[in-house]
Amino acid sequence: MLILGIDPGLQKTGWGVVYSEGHALQFRACGLIKTNAAEPLPRRLASLHAGLRAVIEEWNPDGAAVEETFVNKNPASALKLGQARGVLLAVPALMGVETAEYSANQVKKSIVGTGHAAKEQIGMMVRTLLPGCAKANGGQLSEDEADALAVAITHAHYRSWSSNLARRRS
Amino acid sequence: MLILGIDPGLQKTGWGVVYSEGHALQFRACGLIKTNAAEPLPRRLASLHAGLRAVIEEWNPDGAAVEETFVNKNPASALKLGQARGVLLAVPALMGVETAEYSANQVKKSIVGTGHAAKEQIGMMVRTLLPGCAKANGGQLSEDEADALAVAITHAHYRSWSSNLARRRS
Repeated sequence: MLILGIDPGLQKTGWGVVYSEGHALQFRACGLIKTNAAEPLPRRLASLHAGLRAVIEEWNPDGAAVEETFVNKNPASALKLGQARGVLLAVPALMGVETAEYSANQVKKSIVGTGHAAKEQIGMMVRTLLPGCAKANGGQLSEDEADALAVAITHAHYRSWSSNLARRRS
Repeated sequence: MLILGIDPGLQKTGWGVVYSEGHALQFRACGLIKTNAAEPLPRRLASLHAGLRAVIEEWNPDGAAVEETFVNKNPASALKLGQARGVLLAVPALMGVETAEYSANQVKKSIVGTGHAAKEQIGMMVRTLLPGCAKANGGQLSEDEADALAVAITHAHYRSWSSNLARRRS
């Protein structure tokens, strides 16, 4: 199955597509949806909507995944991130693609093996798990793209784990 | 011109349509877009998107207006409201309708005449300024609908004020 991972942000949103079959994982694509800070907020949110819609139309994923937002102490930035996140959660649902949410700890455990991994370890492990991604985009993998791929890999792990469980039970 | 006012909320979003010509104001319609709390968040956000899209398709407003969000001390609720708000700001922009934002003080000043009005005064003044709205929806005007109509009226005031200014200047 094809899994779309999304790392929401108003200024730039990372996305990544991973193919998962049993325990095998393959990198397919990743990118950034950027918005123009000079434009009014509604226009920027519409750009995020249109950008993610184009990605889903091109890759036709079977499922999407996004990291649960860490609610920090600043309500103003929580509101700002929330606005971008709301748009990005609505798009797959409008297109019939189910989106799963994973906590930051679930992502870290899936990728690095421990819930207390450092941010840089995520990027390193994503490059190791998906060798193809290092060659994409001229060898540059941004942090937002790495985070998007990480949550896509997490979704693949949880799905294969739950389908194994279902097989054992039946 | 037809103005759409929006009062964002994940559980229920109020909307109201007002016709404004010079200093004259007329009530056209109002309603609530409700989401099912039992559904997953992406589905609820997609319902808000579809609901507002249907309102804009039906009423074809020339402009939209929304109140700036008061960022309270709770980042978790700021995130939640932000997610709904982001979706509702993106929809008009995607449909080519420009959305203006007004502070709560601007709305109170436009409606009640002072920036320190109580919540109940808004509803009372909206009923006075738009006599038609009292008869709509079986005489029941919810607080969210009243707030949506209030921000639409505010937009009408600011527009007529700025066009008067333009006339005087020319």
